[in-house]
Amino acid sequence: MSDLTSFALPHVAKLHAYTPGLQPGESGWVKLNTNENPYPPSPRVAEALRREIGAEGASLRLYPNPTSAPLRAALAHHHGLWPENVFVGNGSDDVLNLLVRCFCTQEAAAGFLLPSYSLYPVLVEIQDGRSNPVEFDRTMRLPLEKIAASEAKAFFLTSPNAPTAVGFANDEIEKILSAFRGILIVDEAYAAFASESAVTLLSRHPRLVVVRTFSKSHALAGIRVGYALAHADLIGLLDRVKDSYNVSRLSQVAALAALDDAGYYDAIIEKIKDTRDFYAHEFTAKRGWFTYPSQANFIFTEPCDAGRKTGPAVAKSLYDFLFARKILVRHFPSHALTASFLRVSVGTDDEMLVLSEALDAWQKQKPTPA
Amino acid sequence: MSDLTSFALPHVAKLHAYTPGLQPGESGWVKLNTNENPYPPSPRVAEALRREIGAEGASLRLYPNPTSAPLRAALAHHHGLWPENVFVGNGSDDVLNLLVRCFCTQEAAAGFLLPSYSLYPVLVEIQDGRSNPVEFDRTMRLPLEKIAASEAKAFFLTSPNAPTAVGFANDEIEKILSAFRGILIVDEAYAAFASESAVTLLSRHPRLVVVRTFSKSHALAGIRVGYALAHADLIGLLDRVKDSYNVSRLSQVAALAALDDAGYYDAIIEKIKDTRDFYAHEFTAKRGWFTYPSQANFIFTEPCDAGRKTGPAVAKSLYDFLFARKILVRHFPSHALTASFLRVSVGTDDEMLVLSEALDAWQKQKPTPA
Repeated sequence: MSDLTSFALPHVAKLHAYTPGLQPGESGWVKLNTNENPYPPSPRVAEALRREIGAEGASLRLYPNPTSAPLRAALAHHHGLWPENVFVGNGSDDVLNLLVRCFCTQEAAAGFLLPSYSLYPVLVEIQDGRSNPVEFDRTMRLPLEKIAASEAKAFFLTSPNAPTAVGFANDEIEKILSAFRGILIVDEAYAAFASESAVTLLSRHPRLVVVRTFSKSHALAGIRVGYALAHADLIGLLDRVKDSYNVSRLSQVAALAALDDAGYYDAIIEKIKDTRDFYAHEFTAKRGWFTYPSQANFIFTEPCDAGRKTGPAVAKSLYDFLFARKILVRHFPSHALTASFLRVSVGTDDEMLVLSEALDAWQKQKPTPA
Repeated sequence: MSDLTSFALPHVAKLHAYTPGLQPGESGWVKLNTNENPYPPSPRVAEALRREIGAEGASLRLYPNPTSAPLRAALAHHHGLWPENVFVGNGSDDVLNLLVRCFCTQEAAAGFLLPSYSLYPVLVEIQDGRSNPVEFDRTMRLPLEKIAASEAKAFFLTSPNAPTAVGFANDEIEKILSAFRGILIVDEAYAAFASESAVTLLSRHPRLVVVRTFSKSHALAGIRVGYALAHADLIGLLDRVKDSYNVSRLSQVAALAALDDAGYYDAIIEKIKDTRDFYAHEFTAKRGWFTYPSQANFIFTEPCDAGRKTGPAVAKSLYDFLFARKILVRHFPSHALTASFLRVSVGTDDEMLVLSEALDAWQKQKPTPA
């Protein structure tokens, strides 16, 4: 620790930054590693941005609407809620960070499942809070009793889960809400690709917060807009800890335009689900790979090599094989329940064909050495 | 406090949100209240944005560069530093917030001057930290001995100061750096309009952090890009507590394009300084109003009414008079040293003429009742 680092708060000096998925600078990659939407956003987004920019970008000299008020109103309308039930942040990661700041500390633990979105413990560490993780078993079913017994003040539940893609039914979420006495945050980054959403539970459950993002479903990871839906009192807490002007003008404009083109998004979401189901079936039936049923825009599969072997080394060998062919997927070696798997984001038909042919070539190789 | 609010951490439940300056939704206002640049950004910004958006906004589906690496490199080049000396945030408010998260808590107080940027104590409250404010007197000169004696671990110094517009010389900042033993954060939101910048001190002073923004000097308040310049170890701390993808693709593109047009910005900054000096002289010489010498893109002046009276009621009466004519300026009634003043952002020639005529009309009114 350098002399300068010693000026930092002790917990900050010990932090390690969260590692996001690789974002290659150059083109030519088949990028199936960060669950981006393979299709462009609605044409209305580019149109609205061009309109906002105008000839000389004159409006950019002015601060954005500090609360993203028009976007909150549109989101409220979209979800059948009131504007005071909506908070808009700089991506859903910002929203999750603010929720940690509102509810979590050394005395008030943050609960979450393992394996799940690996940002939660990082946010808790930045807050110098205490984590209270609950482990899945290999079924990846919700461990309801363990969650109910959690002493966490706020519990983060990713549904559908990442990186497993397993979705949780609303009746299970309601069971948690009756047994668990804290704030339940359902992180629905992938819910547009699932069969159910917890949004319909909000009016009956004041301790429920649903977090959403435009990154995946709306093909807008580049603009950083996420939001929370909850009781007005909880939204009021987020408003107290947010950055004054947290969402740029162009991001607000882009998200509003995207919301206005439900037809386009319904079509690409259906297409992604079809592609997902086709390849999930291919992995399972043709290749014989154990694959969790996916309710997201990615597939979590356990590759078998030519010798019918599975395991962390096999998964790593396939990851490396694909990487060498400029195909990026994601490997999570640090948890026993994920280390033998790869997570593959659903791409376009062309991208999935390139992947599929590479998988065929890999399966014909001689087995991974023990 | 509602039942739901009681789930929040106790300090969050008691927070009041920071109140940013009014952002009127409709047009027709002469908006001189939030120190925005009255001129549009460089034409290269709009061009670069149109290029990034392309026909269908396809790149927006992808996450942005998580560290804004190309922008850090360009800023390093611009300031004659290395990329590891640069951190880019979602506006300089985000950078200030992360600095508070790195250095401030109940045990490690945050220092700042009063009056100064009113966000600092809000950020400290959100962090449940302790504030250690130091008071200016009416000279608005730096109280060097009081700062030197501060027990703060990190001290936030706005230079030029807001809302007074008074700038501080580098030799004074160096005096603070020798006497004060913590981290000194010089918030240079307005330094492009000043005669000196502390950036040149960085190589000699590892405990110095300089914070900058594209909002004012680069006419880009709408895109939310700010940055910190400091020793690589301090930048490393900010990288550990930042949001993974904190700056949108379009914001990174806009800031890069702006940096590439120094000639345009030099010209509009000179123009703003000329307008500022003209009207500061008008306030002082023609109207006889006490006005601090401005090194920023705004003027802090103490209006006298027709009866040669000054004071909070006079300032408020002028604020209301201007508001009724759709001219927005800023009044800071909550501190004794600011309550008799108004802060006027420097606008275009046309806007300043409208203001000047309104001031003439107000001065002819009968005096404010006692």
